[in-house]
Amino acid sequence: MKKINIGIFGGTGYTGGELCRLLLNHPEVQEILPTSRKDLDFNRYYQALSGSGINFITSEDLEKRVHEGDVDVIFLSLPSGEAMKLAPMALDAGVKVVDLGADFRFKNPNLYEQIYGKKHECPDLCREAVYGITELKREEIKKARLIANPGCYVMNAMLGLVPLLNKGLIHLDHIPVFGIHGMSGADNKPERDIMYTEVEGNIMSYQQIHRHNWEIEDQIKQLSGQKAVVNFTPTYGSFSRGTIIWCNPFVKESAKKTSREEFLRLYSKYYKNEFFIRINQFPKTKSESQKEYDIYPQIKNVRGTNFCDIGLDYDTERGIIKIITVTDNLIKGAAGSAIQNMNLMFGFDEKEGLKSYGL
Amino acid sequence: MKKINIGIFGGTGYTGGELCRLLLNHPEVQEILPTSRKDLDFNRYYQALSGSGINFITSEDLEKRVHEGDVDVIFLSLPSGEAMKLAPMALDAGVKVVDLGADFRFKNPNLYEQIYGKKHECPDLCREAVYGITELKREEIKKARLIANPGCYVMNAMLGLVPLLNKGLIHLDHIPVFGIHGMSGADNKPERDIMYTEVEGNIMSYQQIHRHNWEIEDQIKQLSGQKAVVNFTPTYGSFSRGTIIWCNPFVKESAKKTSREEFLRLYSKYYKNEFFIRINQFPKTKSESQKEYDIYPQIKNVRGTNFCDIGLDYDTERGIIKIITVTDNLIKGAAGSAIQNMNLMFGFDEKEGLKSYGL
Amino acid sequence: MKKINIGIFGGTGYTGGELCRLLLNHPEVQEILPTSRKDLDFNRYYQALSGSGINFITSEDLEKRVHEGDVDVIFLSLPSGEAMKLAPMALDAGVKVVDLGADFRFKNPNLYEQIYGKKHECPDLCREAVYGITELKREEIKKARLIANPGCYVMNAMLGLVPLLNKGLIHLDHIPVFGIHGMSGADNKPERDIMYTEVEGNIMSYQQIHRHNWEIEDQIKQLSGQKAVVNFTPTYGSFSRGTIIWCNPFVKESAKKTSREEFLRLYSKYYKNEFFIRINQFPKTKSESQKEYDIYPQIKNVRGTNFCDIGLDYDTERGIIKIITVTDNLIKGAAGSAIQNMNLMFGFDEKEGLKSYGL
Amino acid sequence: MKKINIGIFGGTGYTGGELCRLLLNHPEVQEILPTSRKDLDFNRYYQALSGSGINFITSEDLEKRVHEGDVDVIFLSLPSGEAMKLAPMALDAGVKVVDLGADFRFKNPNLYEQIYGKKHECPDLCREAVYGITELKREEIKKARLIANPGCYVMNAMLGLVPLLNKGLIHLDHIPVFGIHGMSGADNKPERDIMYTEVEGNIMSYQQIHRHNWEIEDQIKQLSGQKAVVNFTPTYGSFSRGTIIWCNPFVKESAKKTSREEFLRLYSKYYKNEFFIRINQFPKTKSESQKEYDIYPQIKNVRGTNFCDIGLDYDTERGIIKIITVTDNLIKGAAGSAIQNMNLMFGFDEKEGLKSYGL
Repeated sequence: MKKINIGIFGGTGYTGGELCRLLLNHPEVQEILPTSRKDLDFNRYYQALSGSGINFITSEDLEKRVHEGDVDVIFLSLPSGEAMKLAPMALDAGVKVVDLGADFRFKNPNLYEQIYGKKHECPDLCREAVYGITELKREEIKKARLIANPGCYVMNAMLGLVPLLNKGLIHLDHIPVFGIHGMSGADNKPERDIMYTEVEGNIMSYQQIHRHNWEIEDQIKQLSGQKAVVNFTPTYGSFSRGTIIWCNPFVKESAKKTSREEFLRLYSKYYKNEFFIRINQFPKTKSESQKEYDIYPQIKNVRGTNFCDIGLDYDTERGIIKIITVTDNLIKGAAGSAIQNMNLMFGFDEKEGLKSYGL
Repeated sequence: MKKINIGIFGGTGYTGGELCRLLLNHPEVQEILPTSRKDLDFNRYYQALSGSGINFITSEDLEKRVHEGDVDVIFLSLPSGEAMKLAPMALDAGVKVVDLGADFRFKNPNLYEQIYGKKHECPDLCREAVYGITELKREEIKKARLIANPGCYVMNAMLGLVPLLNKGLIHLDHIPVFGIHGMSGADNKPERDIMYTEVEGNIMSYQQIHRHNWEIEDQIKQLSGQKAVVNFTPTYGSFSRGTIIWCNPFVKESAKKTSREEFLRLYSKYYKNEFFIRINQFPKTKSESQKEYDIYPQIKNVRGTNFCDIGLDYDTERGIIKIITVTDNLIKGAAGSAIQNMNLMFGFDEKEGLKSYGL
Repeated sequence: MKKINIGIFGGTGYTGGELCRLLLNHPEVQEILPTSRKDLDFNRYYQALSGSGINFITSEDLEKRVHEGDVDVIFLSLPSGEAMKLAPMALDAGVKVVDLGADFRFKNPNLYEQIYGKKHECPDLCREAVYGITELKREEIKKARLIANPGCYVMNAMLGLVPLLNKGLIHLDHIPVFGIHGMSGADNKPERDIMYTEVEGNIMSYQQIHRHNWEIEDQIKQLSGQKAVVNFTPTYGSFSRGTIIWCNPFVKESAKKTSREEFLRLYSKYYKNEFFIRINQFPKTKSESQKEYDIYPQIKNVRGTNFCDIGLDYDTERGIIKIITVTDNLIKGAAGSAIQNMNLMFGFDEKEGLKSYGL
Repeated sequence: MKKINIGIFGGTGYTGGELCRLLLNHPEVQEILPTSRKDLDFNRYYQALSGSGINFITSEDLEKRVHEGDVDVIFLSLPSGEAMKLAPMALDAGVKVVDLGADFRFKNPNLYEQIYGKKHECPDLCREAVYGITELKREEIKKARLIANPGCYVMNAMLGLVPLLNKGLIHLDHIPVFGIHGMSGADNKPERDIMYTEVEGNIMSYQQIHRHNWEIEDQIKQLSGQKAVVNFTPTYGSFSRGTIIWCNPFVKESAKKTSREEFLRLYSKYYKNEFFIRINQFPKTKSESQKEYDIYPQIKNVRGTNFCDIGLDYDTERGIIKIITVTDNLIKGAAGSAIQNMNLMFGFDEKEGLKSYGL
């Protein structure tokens, strides 16, 4: 099979860099073309990738190669509003598009306009785009021209909630969702607040009324057909990589007698064929200390990987199920799942380029 | 006024060490007597306090001095079940007691027995003990012999919720409370899971069905007279000190039109005479980046201090108020508020020994 | 005694903030006046000091107050070359000056000019200024108008070497000095390289040919009368505060038979009256693991304090003495020792405002 | 070619875990057999490798398989003194051995006995073993039965010094070597000193008279034929992975006029065919800030990889060359270079299993 050439619009952000790093070890990839606005030396900018042979190109040059059909797929890692300018041109040239931003995440362009405060320039593509959670949309992705890749929060929340939504086991009128992700989620524009000295030993709340609140609600509605109220709280942690999401919904009366073990079995069954989803099934032991960290998933176990680890607990007295999901925000929560989707779109093995285990 | 002598049962844990450190700069304190089971060199064990002149004594020797009335107050920083063995003896000897553990936190000893799984040996003292949130119980504390000092989670949650509970503004049937505290909350017993290499860049969930869930519900009931359902999620963060709590209850219909600014004013008014409570009142600005970290309280601003910083946001569409409170888990969440209470019990200035600002 | 008013030129850097914080708990201080070029809200800029009552003023306003004799002392925390513009004016107005920059650190202005590449505007003041290592120059400092406060590296190196230099025990022709300080040493100007995500788990070398190499050599010459060659290596560590310096000189043949214990006694004797210098005298024990961290000083024990902890080891086979000194780079290595010197200049207790022990 | 089976004695330490992780992605590896003394669940112990299919076996079972010739190579990651008990048996059974401990690192068994304080049980194997710095001993390694793999400090120091030693450009009578490695170097046995709360923001000196001082001197002697005096200072940094070494020797008079650029060219030429050695050749720019972090190698760029990045600076005034080398202490400094050597011993591509770039 012919190897593919890949363009990356937005090559200087953390997601762009991670795409380069992962694609370097992908056996089906020929050329990797990340863009940079300034005239940067790739080897100096990404010293970790020094010697890899990749170089930056300008957006103009990459657009030209897209026009000429010299590129097979482009990844868009751009501020909101920019992907909708590039995607139509690429699709017209027969180039597949994976957008890692928000432009195509809402089926309903009005919702996008309401939340992002700007007019959508290609509403038809909103309707065409496939929302890129591979585990939920595999068949659609295989046939897609345009993927709207979710961010790490929504990825984690949906992978955690879907087995329950699927069975209709939880109340949707109030789903608390709490999320922490690493500082790499803040992108790499220098600001005083995200300097090392300011972040060490800190936890930084931000945007407590967050756009992803609507996105999670929209995804739940797409899946269940029902309106949900999500109570979402995002925060930065004092670490560089990783996302952890807690979803603590109330279980419906009919399922209240379910045990932790039964819920775990439900999850294991739901995800039994998924390589990148691991259910943390360790039993609770009756230890003196009651410090049982390993029965819940931990960021360190997925850092540097495309895995999503899921664990849970069940508060029988209150009827609250407590689901925890962890991913690497730059991989399963961004570049990794984008490549996973690309693999499907091109008929490659879904795991190609993504087989690493955590350090 | 005569200076006081202070005994600390449980002198080798982080809370015991912090009590020593803070009391060293307290002008009304004569002798500080922390206990240690093993024959430890205080200067080597607490190198940061090297040269301070404090030494460890045995529990037996401290008990003897308590009997002899040679000590004015004891702090108990012990595993649950041990304080109830020591407190009656000390009170009988006319020595005041500040317990930093759980033994006297529930007015109703049955609740203690149900949650901690052991019989309470002095139920009368449960009823006598004053729950030590200074800002809520100042007058009772002044007259108390026995203080049940709360842990950091409940301290933060209650200080965050009280202005709303006081006015009856929120629904009590589902209050999501999310908390993160530093690794010093895990105490200093070596275990593989809390070693540096395991914790760096990690977030560690633990005991998702946590005893403090009941304690917060009990405190809300004490204050409001009403039953509450709290959905509490505790976790360790990859930092050594500090506690942050998010409480995200639904606002009652009658108050739904309240603005963020009005809620902030309510809090400012409620706490207007409290030195150790600071309300983060900065306005939201319409910035491009939408990264406004400083409108929410941050752990770094209270680390090393007895302050509790409180901030909030309001989701008008969903009617959810998002309250954030931060403290230093070892100070306002433990040793500091214990000293604050001691100051009241002895008629000292409440701020004595606790005036430091954050690094 | 009348309380004093204090001006701080350069109030927005980490050292300026630390001066404010420490002076807030100084009983002899009336007003604290930090300057800011921009119109900043002090409570928002330094949220940790929120509620303290301090406000920023402009440089122009502070200069005016200096002229009017309405200020007793000024601290200068400015880029090199700026202190020499302000100091003469202040001294003329009868205001004492503590400079935390490099402008007056070299007795010989030519050396300054050679190293800093700019002409010195007031060479006479170079000769008048007292180099502010309190422990070495106490009597001179008491009478001084102008203090040249050293940076953290030179402070640590000199406090570590002086007992040996004083007795002439080491070879001066090659003194390796290795230093690490926290990211707060990089000041708070946002740059990509010092953002959290870039620094976590990293060690950042910089300026391997560093100006402080000459400054240490110059100080050794001032003290010993002899030329020294220092092999200095500075680096940033992935932590916010603290400085650690290793000095590993060869011991002269005549002293080669000295034992570790004897060297420790020499240090203890030399510093026996110094409150802020603590010698780590714990004996080596013959343990299986050979992991004896506590026999050497550690940054955590001095963080947040004005202490300098010193420890050592001796390589008898090679005749190399290995001296380790730790300080908080913003306190003993900057703001704290500046205040210690101020205390002497005004006849206050040297420890005033600086009595905190480490967290 | 037939795939190989691999035994790992000491499968529960960090190095053992890292060997498992790396070998999982090695295309020539069939079975991976790490030993554990206790009956541990591999998936729970190494949650990051959960689902990989690896299981622990007992040492006894692995010894049996070695005897039966059912294993092709064993890695020994054991306390000193244990490898010498296992290696002869394995070699007799025709199994290749890569020892990651100290038992075979000294050609001269007397030196081992003097430094490690125990008798060597198979001195002949000391003489046979090849010291496993691939870049220096490639041809010998290809033919070896037994590799003595160096630790991270000596690996970094030698890779940094060899181009200079090779040309005889530096004085050997006093080579300062300063090293920092991450906490994973402390292995994973829980102790109070290496718990998160104790390490955060700290730097921990240890064993200032360190065994590797002799090992570096011995290696220099092996290479140059001359006696060297190394002044080695090891320390732990507050990060989990990585090793950085500074070597600052004096340049001989004859080479004193060499420029930084010429030294860089010397290094580039020396290592021009080495995939895993990258020379950081960025020019110094005359920037205002003088903060040029990227001209020196940084741990973050090699973390998670088998690369060794080397950079340098030259102090023309003093004639001191300042060489900096960084590796991941668990990869190039342990498991990675062990696999690199294994690849050579079996005729595989030297890079197999080791191609990842840094996160």
